[in-house]
Amino acid sequence: MQKPAIPKGTRDFSQVEMARRNYIFNTIRDVFALYGFAQIETPAMELMSTLMGKYGEEGDKLLFRIQNSGEKAGEAPEKGLRYDLTVPFARYVVQHRDTIQFPFKRYQIQPVWRADRPQKGRYREFYQCDVDVVGTNSLLAEVELIQIVEEVYRRLGIRVSLHLNNRKVLAGIAEVIGAPEKMVDITVAIDKLDKIGIDKVNEELLERGLTPEAVQALQPILHLSGSNAEKLSSLRTILADSEIGMRGVEELAEVFELLAAVDCQLSVELDLCLARGLNYYTGAIFEVKALDVQMGSITGGGRYDNLTGIFGMPDVSGVGISFGADRIYDVLTELDLYPAELQSTTQLLFACFGADELRFAAKCATTLRKQGLRVEVYPEAVKMKRQMAYADAKHIPYVAIIGSNELAEQKVMLKNMLTGEQRLVGVEGLMSTEFN
Amino acid sequence: MQKPAIPKGTRDFSQVEMARRNYIFNTIRDVFALYGFAQIETPAMELMSTLMGKYGEEGDKLLFRIQNSGEKAGEAPEKGLRYDLTVPFARYVVQHRDTIQFPFKRYQIQPVWRADRPQKGRYREFYQCDVDVVGTNSLLAEVELIQIVEEVYRRLGIRVSLHLNNRKVLAGIAEVIGAPEKMVDITVAIDKLDKIGIDKVNEELLERGLTPEAVQALQPILHLSGSNAEKLSSLRTILADSEIGMRGVEELAEVFELLAAVDCQLSVELDLCLARGLNYYTGAIFEVKALDVQMGSITGGGRYDNLTGIFGMPDVSGVGISFGADRIYDVLTELDLYPAELQSTTQLLFACFGADELRFAAKCATTLRKQGLRVEVYPEAVKMKRQMAYADAKHIPYVAIIGSNELAEQKVMLKNMLTGEQRLVGVEGLMSTEFN
Repeated sequence: MQKPAIPKGTRDFSQVEMARRNYIFNTIRDVFALYGFAQIETPAMELMSTLMGKYGEEGDKLLFRIQNSGEKAGEAPEKGLRYDLTVPFARYVVQHRDTIQFPFKRYQIQPVWRADRPQKGRYREFYQCDVDVVGTNSLLAEVELIQIVEEVYRRLGIRVSLHLNNRKVLAGIAEVIGAPEKMVDITVAIDKLDKIGIDKVNEELLERGLTPEAVQALQPILHLSGSNAEKLSSLRTILADSEIGMRGVEELAEVFELLAAVDCQLSVELDLCLARGLNYYTGAIFEVKALDVQMGSITGGGRYDNLTGIFGMPDVSGVGISFGADRIYDVLTELDLYPAELQSTTQLLFACFGADELRFAAKCATTLRKQGLRVEVYPEAVKMKRQMAYADAKHIPYVAIIGSNELAEQKVMLKNMLTGEQRLVGVEGLMSTEFN
Repeated sequence: MQKPAIPKGTRDFSQVEMARRNYIFNTIRDVFALYGFAQIETPAMELMSTLMGKYGEEGDKLLFRIQNSGEKAGEAPEKGLRYDLTVPFARYVVQHRDTIQFPFKRYQIQPVWRADRPQKGRYREFYQCDVDVVGTNSLLAEVELIQIVEEVYRRLGIRVSLHLNNRKVLAGIAEVIGAPEKMVDITVAIDKLDKIGIDKVNEELLERGLTPEAVQALQPILHLSGSNAEKLSSLRTILADSEIGMRGVEELAEVFELLAAVDCQLSVELDLCLARGLNYYTGAIFEVKALDVQMGSITGGGRYDNLTGIFGMPDVSGVGISFGADRIYDVLTELDLYPAELQSTTQLLFACFGADELRFAAKCATTLRKQGLRVEVYPEAVKMKRQMAYADAKHIPYVAIIGSNELAEQKVMLKNMLTGEQRLVGVEGLMSTEFN
């Protein structure tokens, strides 16, 4: 006999946790649908050849490999659990290119697996929720994603601000400070600004081979202040000699113009310190932070110009963002923002004290369910106390008690569990009661 | 460069397939909620010690094992992908026994993995959809599951019949034909009746050590005819000397009585040839078949008295059923029963022919989305033909065309894609149009 347990870094989700997670995912899903995004799913396992080399050396080490029990190594192509939704999506786009309508607007909500060392808030299995448009360069795609962020967090009741930058601007900055080939190093270093501070970033930039002059030249740019329009205006001067930099500035300007046209109410801040680690981004990059709680980025993404190139389909531009379900869950918990009705889905419990009463309850419950009410019948004629404890524990707001007297009258004693108030009603009376 | 592919026996699900699958799962979920069932999830990986020995020798061989890339064998406890939802559920109940409210009504919709040889209709990754009540002996649980079957298939529009039997009756039959210790053999053999026919079943019974007399005695019982009440009445005579058999008969009688009380309209047939292979069943067993299409069982389950015993929590009775998502999908496809609106989620596409038009479209789209309309804006000012082809391919019923004339008037040319009819309307006009 064994003590039950689950693998390190994995989780069971209880009914309450699932109700909350479903609330988050359904909210996001409803907003995606308003913009014409449709869901796809890919298998949990991908070929190792699809996964390897896509996440850097570190990432390769974090892949979970899969083997059939009866199978010897080398007998079948190696498989691994998906590490994110991005690479499987790129693989999907290329594999199904002939049947996909471009621009392809898809979302995907599935678990991913990483053999990270488990620690607080870091799991080996967690859900990702990605939304992407591929097959268009139009900046309307960026704008719609920002609108989606606005609407999702409005519905969830979380106040957020969105930080926006553009990789072309970062490339332009690298050019004008005289270190055009150091764009990736600059990006990687700046990306840590929040975590390690400007002094350590500057140290790292020097270690990565930037000259002290270049690091010096970078400082005022990273600390540009003022409104978005003022920052753009400064950048137009700073980046005047960089073609790619100016293209980035124009992209940013167009995004801001479209956001104004659609009357976006979200706080969108041009943040030149935003870099994002992943090196496949080539245009806009975003990150969303909750305003009322200390938490890292809860949504992020950007534009990539060649994600499908590794699978043999070059020059397909796309843009996407990913909602961090676990962090959103934590923010909603910390700010106590879950709707009260998530506590219980059941609206009414029948409590009975005999076989005949149970049969009557089953009959009444059937009638009420036909009206759309969510109803349970406590299935055994145990003591009142136990049946009431069940209703309490499940936060069921009403209990319909059926003893022999009630049965004789073909009625129930309806108890409001919040107020304690009781009244005798027939099935008709139950149907006209508001069970919320 | 590699040609993209996925592992043998796995599938990608496109938007159309996902819309259909979500339709099935949402229908089932809505019905579960009416009965107070709530969702849980368990991790994709379980410890091998949880999985091994639970599915027979054959099953053990079909488990997928998981290893961290950086990890040597033996370094960490072995893990495997879940093979079904039943064993993880039993593990969950025992592990969380202190916080679970019993009777525990849970459902679970998650993929499972089996290293079966892939073939038509058999996949290595597929979803299961299980609903169970544990912690009560009440036969109301069986009845509610039957009512759930009735309502799910009513909503899906699939005509079905439910076959019902009871393992105690089968045990009683084994007793009265003089082979009480052969109950499992009888069950395993009878279970194949549909596939191999009565002659082969009888052969197998002899091979499994039943005497010719016992096999002979079994025949009339397997072929009992008449109404359910008539069969029950015959069984009362046949099983009069078997205590366990008579308990099974009484359980069946009570289920039928309760079904009558709740006015169940589902065809429920007492089928003494129904055995179901899994040997953890101890009471009622069910199987559901579609009437209008040749397909195996699309839903099945039964009562088990000791599922959690293997994890150290004996004597917890439960009953559950599993909806076969892939088969239900195939039935709905074959009978063409999917609602037409699944074809497209987007109700309206804006087609534009310039940057200013696009900005106007984005603005109109934002307004309409606030009214709950699902709207796309074609993000590039490409040729009319390509934008129309996009709407066609995605079955979008209306296109709002914006050229320079429309823009000047701040109106759109609204085209009904089904009838070809066009009319010029403003945003107000769009808002009052029924886009379905």
